[in-house]
Amino acid sequence: MTAAVSDRLEHRAQRLAAHPRFWDETRETQPLEERKKLILERIQKQIAYAYEGLPFYRKLYDRHGVKPSDIRTMEDFTQRVPVVTKQMLRDAQAEYPPFGSYSNTPPEQIARIYGSSGTTGVPTLYAISKSDWARATEAQAMAIWAMGVRPGDVVHFVFPFGMFIGGWAIMAGVERVGATVFPVGAADSKRHIDLIQQLRPTVLAGTPSYVLHLADVARSIGVNLRSSSVHTLIVGGEPGGTVPGSVAAIRGGWGDDIIVCDTGNTSECFPTQMNSSCDQGQGVHVFEDEVYLETVDPDDTRCRAPDGEFGATVYTTLWRESQPMIRFFAADRARLVHGTCTCGRTYPRLPEGMIGRLDDMLLVRGANVYPSAIEGALRQVPGVGAEYRIVIERKGALDELRLQVEPDAEWTKLQTADAHALLAQSIVERLRREIGLRVGVEVVAPGTFEKMLFKARRVIDRRPAER
Amino acid sequence: MTAAVSDRLEHRAQRLAAHPRFWDETRETQPLEERKKLILERIQKQIAYAYEGLPFYRKLYDRHGVKPSDIRTMEDFTQRVPVVTKQMLRDAQAEYPPFGSYSNTPPEQIARIYGSSGTTGVPTLYAISKSDWARATEAQAMAIWAMGVRPGDVVHFVFPFGMFIGGWAIMAGVERVGATVFPVGAADSKRHIDLIQQLRPTVLAGTPSYVLHLADVARSIGVNLRSSSVHTLIVGGEPGGTVPGSVAAIRGGWGDDIIVCDTGNTSECFPTQMNSSCDQGQGVHVFEDEVYLETVDPDDTRCRAPDGEFGATVYTTLWRESQPMIRFFAADRARLVHGTCTCGRTYPRLPEGMIGRLDDMLLVRGANVYPSAIEGALRQVPGVGAEYRIVIERKGALDELRLQVEPDAEWTKLQTADAHALLAQSIVERLRREIGLRVGVEVVAPGTFEKMLFKARRVIDRRPAER
Repeated sequence: MTAAVSDRLEHRAQRLAAHPRFWDETRETQPLEERKKLILERIQKQIAYAYEGLPFYRKLYDRHGVKPSDIRTMEDFTQRVPVVTKQMLRDAQAEYPPFGSYSNTPPEQIARIYGSSGTTGVPTLYAISKSDWARATEAQAMAIWAMGVRPGDVVHFVFPFGMFIGGWAIMAGVERVGATVFPVGAADSKRHIDLIQQLRPTVLAGTPSYVLHLADVARSIGVNLRSSSVHTLIVGGEPGGTVPGSVAAIRGGWGDDIIVCDTGNTSECFPTQMNSSCDQGQGVHVFEDEVYLETVDPDDTRCRAPDGEFGATVYTTLWRESQPMIRFFAADRARLVHGTCTCGRTYPRLPEGMIGRLDDMLLVRGANVYPSAIEGALRQVPGVGAEYRIVIERKGALDELRLQVEPDAEWTKLQTADAHALLAQSIVERLRREIGLRVGVEVVAPGTFEKMLFKARRVIDRRPAER
Repeated sequence: MTAAVSDRLEHRAQRLAAHPRFWDETRETQPLEERKKLILERIQKQIAYAYEGLPFYRKLYDRHGVKPSDIRTMEDFTQRVPVVTKQMLRDAQAEYPPFGSYSNTPPEQIARIYGSSGTTGVPTLYAISKSDWARATEAQAMAIWAMGVRPGDVVHFVFPFGMFIGGWAIMAGVERVGATVFPVGAADSKRHIDLIQQLRPTVLAGTPSYVLHLADVARSIGVNLRSSSVHTLIVGGEPGGTVPGSVAAIRGGWGDDIIVCDTGNTSECFPTQMNSSCDQGQGVHVFEDEVYLETVDPDDTRCRAPDGEFGATVYTTLWRESQPMIRFFAADRARLVHGTCTCGRTYPRLPEGMIGRLDDMLLVRGANVYPSAIEGALRQVPGVGAEYRIVIERKGALDELRLQVEPDAEWTKLQTADAHALLAQSIVERLRREIGLRVGVEVVAPGTFEKMLFKARRVIDRRPAER
């Protein structure tokens, strides 16, 4: 271990020693049975609130013949309350713009509005009330504190700041614990690396693939991030921060002593960091007294996955006044285990974090991406032909997305390596700008692919079959 | 006037009627003489604080033979206290990284770090303490309130969120007054226009040139922003929001009834909105009891410009504990007038706002841009030849920047219109990504320009000579 490496951990240890271990000890170390009781009470309240005030839930529950008073046990909850899907949210927003009938916060009470892109290109918008924002900030701080971030830490953000809530939520938590926010956002990789050397931040927050990419770029320009000032990486927005293969790759670039903290659940269920690692590397903690997580049989959402076995994720916000989500079927793949962590927290954990989506939406570099959104962006680049393929491969533990694109006839006439490289570059830049996606692009010979005329399936998924 | 237009103003009027007119009435309507006394006291305190705690100021004042106790009147202040230039800040940061010897805030007390790009590519970094951030937020709220933004207003941000503090500062003020933040940030223009229609925000914040650009794009796709939900535009980061020509152009795109509020002083002197319009269109108010503004003879900074005549701007922060700026020579061109505004505020005003920089740095679309930064980005694009020109023209009241670029030899062989268009597009996208600059790019025939080998001056300034 080099001197620089031990320096960063030593500084960290000094900071940790100067502060209590927990943000809210009573809450974080609460005995399981006690917490379960609390969760049930909150679920009952949240359901009653939604049923009384939000037409979306009233209609849904009436259609399924469920009344709030029917939910007397956790089993009732799982077996009787129907799930909510993303499509249902989209339909509700189309019918009752802009926020859908599952949200009724008065305009004066809305603190922030975020959103996510959808299949149709129409984003789903989320309104967060002022009191929800304040409460969520406290919960985010609890998660950030569990990662070992303390006053005096400088958190360099490489997450872009836009409609996607991920980086903003982490920022709110970092600010609340009293650490320093350095919000660089979307910038050139070289610029980020220069800033790491100039400012010497101690924590860096971004998607796992971008964090890996930064290490690659650093190596290529002769900068060794293994001996940088950064002791902790907060990674989220896509799987990777908990899966051993990808964590090993991250350690390869950032040093064997780097602390990797995985974070994030789903944009619909704010606060978004309620699945977050502590600094012990024992998997992702589920702060289930804030956003409750069930893992279920993907084909029968009324049936729970046994403890320790894989299932599909279903989330329930326990405190939201604006946009409560009750049994939101995110359909990530994960398994829950119980037992106190070495950090002392009694929350259940996801030992592998979230290891992939179950539906046809692609989860790539920090955002939900729909093939149709890629197509939408691609189609705007002059020179792009009719056919292309989206190739997804497992690289280490991360999913990597690559585009193979045929040029159009006009472009085909140019037939020079430069022209092809330039077309590829235009596509790369368009995708980055339009949908915030960094991908590899290869321009292939015209006629490489079979023409698809109806219900095209242009996604080639080469990931292992266990998915 | 169409029904939609009167709708937006009517909604606005209802909101205004429900709240007091001032954020801090006593402060905002304070008699001039009383405020002057207060300002002098604060200046004296700020100078004493800097002289005692910050080596940068102690050395500077010792070298000029000034002691804090020498400053007994405002005349003493202007005549005896030397100005601070951007170059002095840069040098101090190079000598005492990362924040320079004009900043000594303990790491645990730093809330945020921002920065601006410099000639050398090394950004100047600004650390803002927690108490400064809190106090500044209150001052920003005062400015945002004066614009007529109230709870229930939805503020759509088209300012990018990165190291540049502009959009963040406005955001803090908007949040503090209790309006809703919709932080879209950097996105495709079409996406912004779609969101305006989907969400119906009431306020939009961005640079004046981007706001104009949005109106152009909207027109080209058949969307009429003149009858949109937006009643107020908060524009800043470059001149334009107060100059009649550009305001008229903005009204052309956004409707005759649109309220245009200009804002911003200089990144170095946070809070950054202390030169801000109210909603009366009487010019920019200078909230001089927070950041004090002198206008001086650009060739003799000890000599004030007479009231109502043009001079170069010199700023002094009155409350900062982190990075106090005392007589920071921003060298913008502006003229100060006194007299109570129709809004009732007694602050002095800049009737034309800030109408241009005095040094060779370019102020374009919300950021300080140095020709060397443009060159740096340009040089990375494959296909770009040795020579290019940066052409600056006055378009209405806005400065517009355009690049003319020769292709390199390899590229010249391609010789197709497509190839040239593609090269231009690559350059546009590189500049946007690298230095956040949107410019028009024209690929010209090789040999168009004289080769420049030493101390090249590639900036062609076609702005009127009165600059």
